[in-house]
Amino acid sequence: MRATVIHGAGDVRVEQVPDPVLREPTDALVRVSLTCICGSDLWPYKSMDHDAAGRRIGHEFVGIVEETGSEVTGVQPGDLVVSPFTWSDGECEFCRESLHTSCVHGGLWGQPGSDGAQGEAVRVPFADGTLVKLPVEPDDKLLPALLTLADVFPTGHHAAVSAGVRPGHTVAVVGDGAVGLSGVLAASRLGAERIIVMGRHTERTDLAREYGATDVVPERGDEAVERVRELTKGQGAHSVLECVGTGESLSTALRLARGGGNVGYVGVPQDGEGVDVRTMFMRNVGLRGGVCPARAYIDELMPDVLSGRFDPSRVFDHTTGLSGVPDGYRAMADRKSLKVLVRP
Amino acid sequence: MRATVIHGAGDVRVEQVPDPVLREPTDALVRVSLTCICGSDLWPYKSMDHDAAGRRIGHEFVGIVEETGSEVTGVQPGDLVVSPFTWSDGECEFCRESLHTSCVHGGLWGQPGSDGAQGEAVRVPFADGTLVKLPVEPDDKLLPALLTLADVFPTGHHAAVSAGVRPGHTVAVVGDGAVGLSGVLAASRLGAERIIVMGRHTERTDLAREYGATDVVPERGDEAVERVRELTKGQGAHSVLECVGTGESLSTALRLARGGGNVGYVGVPQDGEGVDVRTMFMRNVGLRGGVCPARAYIDELMPDVLSGRFDPSRVFDHTTGLSGVPDGYRAMADRKSLKVLVRP
Repeated sequence: MRATVIHGAGDVRVEQVPDPVLREPTDALVRVSLTCICGSDLWPYKSMDHDAAGRRIGHEFVGIVEETGSEVTGVQPGDLVVSPFTWSDGECEFCRESLHTSCVHGGLWGQPGSDGAQGEAVRVPFADGTLVKLPVEPDDKLLPALLTLADVFPTGHHAAVSAGVRPGHTVAVVGDGAVGLSGVLAASRLGAERIIVMGRHTERTDLAREYGATDVVPERGDEAVERVRELTKGQGAHSVLECVGTGESLSTALRLARGGGNVGYVGVPQDGEGVDVRTMFMRNVGLRGGVCPARAYIDELMPDVLSGRFDPSRVFDHTTGLSGVPDGYRAMADRKSLKVLVRP
Repeated sequence: MRATVIHGAGDVRVEQVPDPVLREPTDALVRVSLTCICGSDLWPYKSMDHDAAGRRIGHEFVGIVEETGSEVTGVQPGDLVVSPFTWSDGECEFCRESLHTSCVHGGLWGQPGSDGAQGEAVRVPFADGTLVKLPVEPDDKLLPALLTLADVFPTGHHAAVSAGVRPGHTVAVVGDGAVGLSGVLAASRLGAERIIVMGRHTERTDLAREYGATDVVPERGDEAVERVRELTKGQGAHSVLECVGTGESLSTALRLARGGGNVGYVGVPQDGEGVDVRTMFMRNVGLRGGVCPARAYIDELMPDVLSGRFDPSRVFDHTTGLSGVPDGYRAMADRKSLKVLVRP
């Protein structure tokens, strides 16, 4: 089959790879209907050392179950499913606590020995613990919105939950990428009264406003902190969503928080910088978040996607086939595209 | 009157200072019955630059109200009171949210223009928002235990609350000082099933065991992390209380936490080190805490002190008069004393 392989910074190729086969009785094979490119895929795209053998990549997909192992009971061939961006056994202590990303048998698509999602098919370990059936037809127009349940919408939601967003709260969102915009949508869904998004790209901040942002702050660093203080009686935001992953953005996020407030961070940390507890101590600012246990949130978020009450698919601004994936990476890295949808 | 003044590292003196007088109609004057030396007083004692004029110091006291301003209604002359280590107006948005340390009119004993607690008397700003009446006689044997409500017991409690301690939890406590031991007591009070204290001073770890610790880990750094993992099925602790304040202890605390766990930190941060979100991200470890809003916790903790159910006064292992304060600092700095009680 064909799948996306990354060989180093700027070097993404669509190649012939071995067809996946069932290896364990708990596996399922899924034919990919829709996948996409994630902001976190851009980190290796920007910095990975050359690797002649290459690494499979992509971790978001919706597809149709093609074959199941003998122990799989939750899904069967023909089922339309969405997969969170990590697999999990669904049974361990962490899965039972809704922290599927800490599953003792868990893993991430594209890690050595696994398939990446940006391909024609995927072998899914622990299919029962991982896959979630979608109650629509494979050609349903909601499919791109349901694909966001794999990662970007739950990740925005995880930032909002980690930041303790509650009805009536003032929320600041650092990052105007697809995760940041999903964070705006999630904060709005959770009842935030005021949502301040930090961004300077009009097409993104316009979507942020449609998703519920009430204020846009184009400034950065000290000026952004000052501007948000002005907007919040000098106090800062109850909840701050950090959706970038650099030390600079994390440092800004911590300074945007109100006394007793929380920063929910979901940007994959690119450096160890940004957190000086001396800036948090006197104000009791908390820091929570991390890799999103998407599997735990899908059940909660899916009804609002199915009903059309929230449309998280608007972060997709380009659609391509598998052969267009390398161009998609380039467009996202150049910030010409927000998030690229792929129909293999 | 006489009061303690710090002139620099290692230079604490008891001097004649002006008697306090009412300045604002919301002030009260309190004659100090009991005060003590805090671990956080040791930071300036170890590192403060020489200051010829000196700074007043001490922030924990129980005393008798001597005089009140015209607008004070909550306390009157003759009342026995405890003061949290910060004053607060009791009326602002933050006070109403139980974050009295962020009070818009708040301050810390010993800051310029205020009295320190290690003296004969204190002018208390915003007496109604700050002082809490004690329903015992001034010679009650519980007075030292009630004095701990000023700081050390609520601060241990704040670490436990910030770390999300719940019944059945496994808790690790970094720091065997008075705050760490109070954290052990607070975690026990909140129903922790297992409490692992990091420490190597037998007299301290013995008290920790009496306060509810189930395990003592004398190792530090990597070895401590390994040892705690061994004790917790390889997982780490649900809640970690960081009661030291150095980058090293904070880094250790973050590594002791279980996936999805929380570190509650209350050690005054001495450097900006210790937090690398890359070590927290994959495991969703949260960090909360900061300066303890003691005023918010006094009402909750006092009944358990009055009933004798918990005795937080056992952290006091030496008692002195005001003239013994300089020796008290030395004894605590040399770790010959855990916490010194002062009867001015």
